[in-house]
Amino acid sequence: MSTTFDLTKMRHGTELLKRGFAKMQEGGVIMDVVTPEEAHIAEDAGAVSVMALERVPADIRAMGGVARMSHPQMIQEIIETTSIPVMAKARIGHSEEARVLEQLGVDMIDESEVLTPADPFFHIPKNDFTIPFVCGCTNLGEAVRRIAEGAAMIRTKGEAGTGNVVSAVQHAVLVSKEIEYACEIIKDSNSKNYEEVISSIMDGYNRVKKGSKFNLHSKTTPFGTMEELRSEVESVVSEVVQNKRLPVVTFSAGGIATPADAALMMNHGMDGVFVGSGIFKSSDPANTAEAIVMATHHYNDPSIVSEACSMIGEAMPGLEIETLELRLEDRGW
Amino acid sequence: MSTTFDLTKMRHGTELLKRGFAKMQEGGVIMDVVTPEEAHIAEDAGAVSVMALERVPADIRAMGGVARMSHPQMIQEIIETTSIPVMAKARIGHSEEARVLEQLGVDMIDESEVLTPADPFFHIPKNDFTIPFVCGCTNLGEAVRRIAEGAAMIRTKGEAGTGNVVSAVQHAVLVSKEIEYACEIIKDSNSKNYEEVISSIMDGYNRVKKGSKFNLHSKTTPFGTMEELRSEVESVVSEVVQNKRLPVVTFSAGGIATPADAALMMNHGMDGVFVGSGIFKSSDPANTAEAIVMATHHYNDPSIVSEACSMIGEAMPGLEIETLELRLEDRGW
Repeated sequence: MSTTFDLTKMRHGTELLKRGFAKMQEGGVIMDVVTPEEAHIAEDAGAVSVMALERVPADIRAMGGVARMSHPQMIQEIIETTSIPVMAKARIGHSEEARVLEQLGVDMIDESEVLTPADPFFHIPKNDFTIPFVCGCTNLGEAVRRIAEGAAMIRTKGEAGTGNVVSAVQHAVLVSKEIEYACEIIKDSNSKNYEEVISSIMDGYNRVKKGSKFNLHSKTTPFGTMEELRSEVESVVSEVVQNKRLPVVTFSAGGIATPADAALMMNHGMDGVFVGSGIFKSSDPANTAEAIVMATHHYNDPSIVSEACSMIGEAMPGLEIETLELRLEDRGW
Repeated sequence: MSTTFDLTKMRHGTELLKRGFAKMQEGGVIMDVVTPEEAHIAEDAGAVSVMALERVPADIRAMGGVARMSHPQMIQEIIETTSIPVMAKARIGHSEEARVLEQLGVDMIDESEVLTPADPFFHIPKNDFTIPFVCGCTNLGEAVRRIAEGAAMIRTKGEAGTGNVVSAVQHAVLVSKEIEYACEIIKDSNSKNYEEVISSIMDGYNRVKKGSKFNLHSKTTPFGTMEELRSEVESVVSEVVQNKRLPVVTFSAGGIATPADAALMMNHGMDGVFVGSGIFKSSDPANTAEAIVMATHHYNDPSIVSEACSMIGEAMPGLEIETLELRLEDRGW
């Protein structure tokens, strides 16, 4: 995903600003922090942003129950003590949590499957906000839907809190192969294959219909009518085909626990990485944070990645995907 | 698998060097070690190489969680204190761990299912490296795919950490019978049966297609285009048919716990054995190591194998395959 995209071609002002903010994160590491002290460690290690939350994903998993937006006071304390941008998580479809976060002055909202989803049908109408959003995806269709809804940044949706990089790789490869496929089959918008791609993407918006006992035809969504939405989706697909990549900055997230993991995801064409539990669940967070930033910046220099691997102590203990009771990648669609 | 193969017929230089290094291990025992002291015991017992890792498979099983490349410092200490070759493990598909190991100066990388896989679609493109790789297989197709991808050595994929030899036998017999079948049905490359064999082997590369919601035809892999890959696969199959064996050194691995186990696998036509937990989980590692080397060298002399069996104390306690929660042989494909 190294093809650059032209910011001057963005369709309207706020989208330009939102995507522009996201682009400033490019090549960097965004770290989960739960206290102002951790935010300082992240900033010192060279993180481009911090994600303020009450518990890292590994603890959310371990505790179980409903995970919600963090307490405003906790977020405010982190905003006040760091000079780098602060992100925070809202539940999928929970527009009111997003409004609260916007009010608090965070720089970007992560509509995140790490929290318990609040809406089984629709994500937040992100175009209604002036604050930029980042959303997760497991494949191209999911990414296109989120961008059509207004996401300014995409992150692939590895299994957060597991320290297991396999799902992050799965989603990165799938998105990239599906983009390759879409570019190849979409010669013009009259072809049969074009309709296959668009219909498959639009199918993600039929969840109300599938959930109802009536054979209803839902004509409106929080994002406008189905026609308007289809036109947004088509416009995003056309950007994808034109640029041979997603039209927004695309990070990797979920399961990245070592400098080698970060380098692996960058070599899979990602524009940067989110590291959650991997840093503050390791034996030496400050060194792990610095080593992961180093490996992310120099991902194509094995000698530096090797040096970064030597810097860390014990990586976070992890979880086998096969034995998980809860698959976060199944949240959101 | 005792037919010898002509090293001068190797297709290009680095492949010759890589397979040549692997061939130097022939007839020997490669032992898992977790400390420089264990590496000394292995060397003194006559191991041809040591596999440096943080935990032997039995402990990886018992601990659960994510198993990753060992810490560089641990590997370096073992490299510095032994005079025999040192191997180390990278996760399946984790090219960056492999790059780090190459950088550290290990002699061969084991792309191993004993660690948690990092890629659900593809293994490491081993032809992109100058360091040789060994990979596991449960059947002929898997072996051919790994060799086509650049593996210089194959080991069958017994259930590591169980001390249970049954899977090692299963894979050895299956590979050998499938080679027999392939040799019998492949008279020329126009026959219907030829296509059956090649298609079945190529099917292992369709995992992205199976994981996508689109009806995509992936034309590229980390190993080149599907056509290039098919041609590599055909070339390996032709070597198999010509030599009536795999064109690389083929060891047995996983579950070998006694001198008699090692002799059994050698009598199943294996070129050598890997012993993991079997040595340092036994009551008397130094004697067990020596006895297993003795039985491997003299596998067709029952009196020496018998003597070797008398030398050891208590073998490692083992695990029933049927009661395992995690089958390592299902990792990789």
